Amino acid sequence: MVGSKPLNIELYALALKHASIADEVVHGLKISNERLEYLGDAFLGAIIAEFLYQKFPYRDEGFLTETRSRMVNREALNEIARKIGLQKIIEAQQSGKNFQIHKSIYGDTLEAMVGAIYMDRGYAFTRNFVLKRIVIHFDVDDLITTTANYKSKIIEWSQKESKVIEFSTVSVTGNQRFKEFTVEILVDRTSIATGKGATKKKAEQEAAKAACESLSLL
Amino acid sequence: MVGSKPLNIELYALALKHASIADEVVHGLKISNERLEYLGDAFLGAIIAEFLYQKFPYRDEGFLTETRSRMVNREALNEIARKIGLQKIIEAQQSGKNFQIHKSIYGDTLEAMVGAIYMDRGYAFTRNFVLKRIVIHFDVDDLITTTANYKSKIIEWSQKESKVIEFSTVSVTGNQRFKEFTVEILVDRTSIATGKGATKKKAEQEAAKAACESLSLL
Repeated sequence: MVGSKPLNIELYALALKHASIADEVVHGLKISNERLEYLGDAFLGAIIAEFLYQKFPYRDEGFLTETRSRMVNREALNEIARKIGLQKIIEAQQSGKNFQIHKSIYGDTLEAMVGAIYMDRGYAFTRNFVLKRIVIHFDVDDLITTTANYKSKIIEWSQKESKVIEFSTVSVTGNQRFKEFTVEILVDRTSIATGKGATKKKAEQEAAKAACESLSLL
Repeated sequence: MVGSKPLNIELYALALKHASIADEVVHGLKISNERLEYLGDAFLGAIIAEFLYQKFPYRDEGFLTETRSRMVNREALNEIARKIGLQKIIEAQQSGKNFQIHKSIYGDTLEAMVGAIYMDRGYAFTRNFVLKRIVIHFDVDDLITTTANYKSKIIEWSQKESKVIEFSTVSVTGNQRFKEFTVEILVDRTSIATGKGATKKKAEQEAAKAACESLSLL
């Protein structure tokens, strides 16, 4: 699955040890894949950041951040873990044991596997693994067409439904350097959602996202 | 400052172009350092993740995550930008111009610089730069002694002050896979702080942190 023989097989064994099945404690630390997951999460994020940076030279960082978060969310990673065969390995390992499998175990383990590969083979190998074995499963063009502009979506909806929509800034807290805006969306004068963010625009997007969710527009 | 001659000097010029001084638009994208900042932030995070992973083999991922977030916070990065001379370059560049310098410009630019180095010289060089020019400025041992266990801190405080402290779980929302706990801290039956988290323990830490902040115990 990794595409090459492991140099240090123990790293991969550790990557498969989810916290929910860990029982050994060394130096006060429960021996599980959580540390490798932390490491793998960081490198997966960085490698995908670079992939999107290169793929979309004319898109701003808001777009890049949003697209990346869609690629590394737990659901997406669970799905990839299934596609590359990691799910079967985990299930085989758990079979006959008395554990309930949490769904997030697959994505968690995939991240831990990325961490193990980094520790075993270094950056270039890991980058290649992430691009060839993980990123390849994403239809990025499809992903970005659904990277919604929530504000437009909710405004379109209000026009179609002939509702009066207002974006109202409820509060601005913080100091000169770090601000937090709270924005409320009112439909026919009734508040339907609020959102917070470091800029008014971000707070509006957050509020619009919450509104789209509550109105099932996504 | 980078420790070697740049191969592509334009990347570094771009890294110095903060969004607040950007005025050129190409293909609908404002030409600023925000994309490089996004990239640099990701690699800085990953390299520091590995540094801490190696340095603390017996600490759990909660500790590693918390320590990393203290290293990459805006205040800390602003300070490093000052130490390595980036602040002077930015100030020289802005002098005579009619811009108000945001304090976060230094940390933002440092991240963008890491992004530029990655694009210019690749991973190994960037890793070396981050370890030798950024991480070296942290007194990590000092940092971790202040990586507080907020819950212990607030409990100690309540004992010293002879107050009755309670941690009360206010709500648990979400579904089987993703939960959010809200915990409230009561001192002598009065709520002084709340916190949210994916586990009860995390929510308690968040609430304790907020309580420590509001009581100025940090």
